[in-house]
Amino acid sequence: MSGTPTSRSLLNAESKSLSPASTPASASKSEPLAIMQQGSFAVGGSIKEVPGEFDPTNPVNSGGQTLRGDHAHVFYQIPPEPRPLPVVMWHGGGQSSRTWQTTPDGREGFQNLLIRKGFSTYLVDQPRRGTAGRSLQDFSVNSTADEQLWFNQCRLGLWPDYYENVAFDRSTEALDQFFRMITPNTGPFDMEVITSAISALFSKIGAGILITHSQSGGLGWQTAMKNSNIRGIVSFEPGSNFPFPESETPEPIPSAAGPLTAIPIPIEKFLGLTKIPIVLYYGDNIPNEPCPIAGRDFWRVRMIMARKWVDTVNKYGGNASIVHLPDIGIVGNTHFPFLDLNNIIIADLVFDFLSERGLAG
Amino acid sequence: MSGTPTSRSLLNAESKSLSPASTPASASKSEPLAIMQQGSFAVGGSIKEVPGEFDPTNPVNSGGQTLRGDHAHVFYQIPPEPRPLPVVMWHGGGQSSRTWQTTPDGREGFQNLLIRKGFSTYLVDQPRRGTAGRSLQDFSVNSTADEQLWFNQCRLGLWPDYYENVAFDRSTEALDQFFRMITPNTGPFDMEVITSAISALFSKIGAGILITHSQSGGLGWQTAMKNSNIRGIVSFEPGSNFPFPESETPEPIPSAAGPLTAIPIPIEKFLGLTKIPIVLYYGDNIPNEPCPIAGRDFWRVRMIMARKWVDTVNKYGGNASIVHLPDIGIVGNTHFPFLDLNNIIIADLVFDFLSERGLAG
Repeated sequence: MSGTPTSRSLLNAESKSLSPASTPASASKSEPLAIMQQGSFAVGGSIKEVPGEFDPTNPVNSGGQTLRGDHAHVFYQIPPEPRPLPVVMWHGGGQSSRTWQTTPDGREGFQNLLIRKGFSTYLVDQPRRGTAGRSLQDFSVNSTADEQLWFNQCRLGLWPDYYENVAFDRSTEALDQFFRMITPNTGPFDMEVITSAISALFSKIGAGILITHSQSGGLGWQTAMKNSNIRGIVSFEPGSNFPFPESETPEPIPSAAGPLTAIPIPIEKFLGLTKIPIVLYYGDNIPNEPCPIAGRDFWRVRMIMARKWVDTVNKYGGNASIVHLPDIGIVGNTHFPFLDLNNIIIADLVFDFLSERGLAG
Repeated sequence: MSGTPTSRSLLNAESKSLSPASTPASASKSEPLAIMQQGSFAVGGSIKEVPGEFDPTNPVNSGGQTLRGDHAHVFYQIPPEPRPLPVVMWHGGGQSSRTWQTTPDGREGFQNLLIRKGFSTYLVDQPRRGTAGRSLQDFSVNSTADEQLWFNQCRLGLWPDYYENVAFDRSTEALDQFFRMITPNTGPFDMEVITSAISALFSKIGAGILITHSQSGGLGWQTAMKNSNIRGIVSFEPGSNFPFPESETPEPIPSAAGPLTAIPIPIEKFLGLTKIPIVLYYGDNIPNEPCPIAGRDFWRVRMIMARKWVDTVNKYGGNASIVHLPDIGIVGNTHFPFLDLNNIIIADLVFDFLSERGLAG
């Protein structure tokens, strides 16, 4: 990182975006993206076979038929002369690959920003989400009104008010786009199904960097313990499912959003997380003291657990760090730092981390 | 179109792909794609508001909360100096934007092929499908085994045998990828919801070309009658919902897949379809005589209805044509000509149509 902490504040986001040479691989929005290859594929998943004989005169009878599902779907873009390690971007709960594309206010998201920095990018729809919708289990999709929950939980503010310093465009259109990025599960949430598919992705593409967000944070730790092709993890606001060695799993931490529990795992498995560089980023407006608003208190306890987790990883020889963005002068970030108004600064921060850890090639 | 009809047969697909100069804007796969801008947005849709007051200490109660849904989701790519009219690509039933990307055997799909021809592309996930999953209505997603139905219905062959001439890679991996392209509805199928969102897309982006497939064929006719920004339609194997003037709506056509009915509409509305160039493409292995196999007979009656429909559009001064690909020497095509082994030839055919009708700029 260069500059004083305050030079990274929100107010400087715009001027920084006008100085694209500040990191070697930056490029301005008006420059074309050169893509050597782009495309998509399914990876992972299972097959269900129904006993019987298929009758082509009555094909709506499922006897003798198969169903493939529970795969992930991946859209990739490869720039000319890409950096050695590609970046896999994995959305959070209620989101899809859409989360890394255009920001709610119409600027470039991490898909473009990381291509401009020279990385091959792989955008995931995890099993039972988005275009990877075929599930091997039935499911009910409920049209429950929940946007005020998300407004608070994503720390845009306390509905109907935005936080005073929030790095989020306050136009009606931006909020509309933000809410319409949400897309439901199409099958039951199943950690084993999901992590198996993302592990299969890393087996297919080889060594790479994993970027996670929120729900995929915990899933990402599990996947990294399965597949050593994950060579580094950048985790935006990991939410739950922090794995600890069985003998030192913390007690559940109570909060207004319910207790946050940790996952006990065998130490041999846990040690896998000590072999790779890991960074966790948390944004702004997370309370220090208990608070009755569920969407605020939710993050207070997660950051407490995250700090314990980082300490435990490092105690066993790991290379993990946690960055609370306001502590380094980057203010106003919501639960989605990669699409906030200062996302160019956030992308630079990620790039600096990857460079310093030898992951940018 | 250049060359003799048989020069467009499947066997020539590979040699043609080695001659990228055969149409002005063609380019080989190894050349990079130059993208000036790419990104995504939601368009159309509605908002549900639940009466009551939002309680931030109990946010899972939907009282006082809102839900946005029923929008389409669109991913766009704009090349340098694009042709004047962009191309909107709209998937069929059980599909998503994925349908236009990499083919099941790993080659470039229409997303890349049309960018290489200089068009801006807009890939749609229609409301309640793929990443546009938020529905304002509840829905049950069923994990019904149905792949043998699709194998026959998409005319890969008669399960478990491929058609002898089929332009589809017979590897296990290609079939696996093909089946995993399928993704379910996340809400009830609603023609008005869907066509309103796609009409809103054309209101946002202005004049453009619409490419439809199967289920979106009939939805596309309805959308073009709503929005005159649709300046031309390329329809791959439109399946149902052919609109006819009320006074001359054909009787339902019986088939082993059930009767195919037409939609009666006011003549004033129908005349909208006579103002723009339209082409319908149907592939190979569609029977001429009634057949007890539902997945085959389904297409026999649709091609009969499509011919009646084209004649009716033209009777009222329209500019519609139907191309049965084997009749011009292009053989082996499935229900997905744009991803078959000869899809470069199909893309050239589409380009020739657009050029001849003045839609390629």
